[in-house]
Amino acid sequence: MATASNSAAHLLPHLQKALTCNPNLKLLDIGCGPGTISASLAQHLLPSGHVLATDIADDVLSRAKEHAISQGLAVPENISFQKESVYELSFSDNEFDIVHAHQVLCHLDDPVAAVAEMLRVCKPSGLISLRESDMRMWCFWPELPSLLKFHGLMVDVMLANGGQDKGGRKLVSWIMDAGVERKDIEAGFGTWCYSEPGDRKAWGEAMIERLRTGQMRQRGIELGLTTEEGVEEMVKGWEEWIERGDATLGIVNGEVIVRKVASLPKAT
Amino acid sequence: MATASNSAAHLLPHLQKALTCNPNLKLLDIGCGPGTISASLAQHLLPSGHVLATDIADDVLSRAKEHAISQGLAVPENISFQKESVYELSFSDNEFDIVHAHQVLCHLDDPVAAVAEMLRVCKPSGLISLRESDMRMWCFWPELPSLLKFHGLMVDVMLANGGQDKGGRKLVSWIMDAGVERKDIEAGFGTWCYSEPGDRKAWGEAMIERLRTGQMRQRGIELGLTTEEGVEEMVKGWEEWIERGDATLGIVNGEVIVRKVASLPKAT
Repeated sequence: MATASNSAAHLLPHLQKALTCNPNLKLLDIGCGPGTISASLAQHLLPSGHVLATDIADDVLSRAKEHAISQGLAVPENISFQKESVYELSFSDNEFDIVHAHQVLCHLDDPVAAVAEMLRVCKPSGLISLRESDMRMWCFWPELPSLLKFHGLMVDVMLANGGQDKGGRKLVSWIMDAGVERKDIEAGFGTWCYSEPGDRKAWGEAMIERLRTGQMRQRGIELGLTTEEGVEEMVKGWEEWIERGDATLGIVNGEVIVRKVASLPKAT
Repeated sequence: MATASNSAAHLLPHLQKALTCNPNLKLLDIGCGPGTISASLAQHLLPSGHVLATDIADDVLSRAKEHAISQGLAVPENISFQKESVYELSFSDNEFDIVHAHQVLCHLDDPVAAVAEMLRVCKPSGLISLRESDMRMWCFWPELPSLLKFHGLMVDVMLANGGQDKGGRKLVSWIMDAGVERKDIEAGFGTWCYSEPGDRKAWGEAMIERLRTGQMRQRGIELGLTTEEGVEEMVKGWEEWIERGDATLGIVNGEVIVRKVASLPKAT
């Protein structure tokens, strides 16, 4: 399960520091998806901070809300949920102390516009925290041909949907295109490693679930990128990989913290 | 400069824990190269632990020794230097508490034999700490064609020299082939990120130095993989990349800690 510790570790020291100055922090979590990171961030902001989690889809927000309640959080006191488009947030300028987005820009055809909108709603001296997968940067061992095909299909479907395959390496560039100076950006990379048996099983089964029921299968077949038989071969590949004691998968994410300067940046 | 903090971070918590039980730790650093990590590890072992740093080349060892002295370390009390081949270490079985190697296996044509030899000289319940680049896992932004050519040349020269291009992802597999069970391996990935101006300059200039005077140029031309003009184009690529404010380079390393069990492993 994605949490603040495993998926927003680059933000946590900044969050702790900001909390010591202002225990009533307002954090905007854009594109919250299943909401596990949002809920985890809300726990870091207890007792008096607040997370506003947004997504473009109502059903996603309902499930995220259920998850937050299951974690013992009070809705709407600790965390609230609201439908929003990242391109046109309904908030005033300078409203949030921290704006967070995890694996969101990779789904967008105009990531620079989204960053500009995040900057708009962030308070001067506030922070924007982004983490985006670099989808080209997966390394499998063993390199089963069916898994390499899976990886290719995932990237091709992402691109066909208007998303981004190299977000990790482009983050700094996108943020500068939105008007931020390099000196106000802290950049790094973080990794996920799936290698010990429990991690292999959880990740492999999630990928099989995605192949069996997700839109990757449907879009892949629709676009002529794969076939039903091709998908079944990929499922078998993941099953084999889960069972291989020496298997590894590394995935790379770009991670940045942007400090908004007092004056609003000028988008290019 | 490579240090324990930026290049052996996965080992440091284990080192601290081991030191609390035994302040006289004996650490073997194999393939120490310039010795900056060795010296840094020796500082972590002060006052009564000891690092024995080895390399295959005498001149490399001399420079590493000079570096250690420049860092205020006492030779041979805190750190000593010795010429060794990783395939045939001159030490008895079960001699060291910790065996460390950083970017060593990638240069070898038989990494499994090297791991078996490291296991031999490690005490039961001792640790082996390895970190190996996955050379395929570099991501550049911007993707200047000359830099992509540089990356291809680097990988091809490494392979032509009998080295390994996918060490990061294969570490777990190599270690298991040397007789270790999966449960005794902790595996992850770590990254280097070169993006802020000072880091870009230091890394880019090191790559230019490598192109101008290193064996990569000589071997690349000798093997017909590039030409003098090709090398100069790569130098220009790095110069351009250093100057680009939005440039980024991510590099991925596999990182493992192996605990040696009481009985010697049986190599396959």
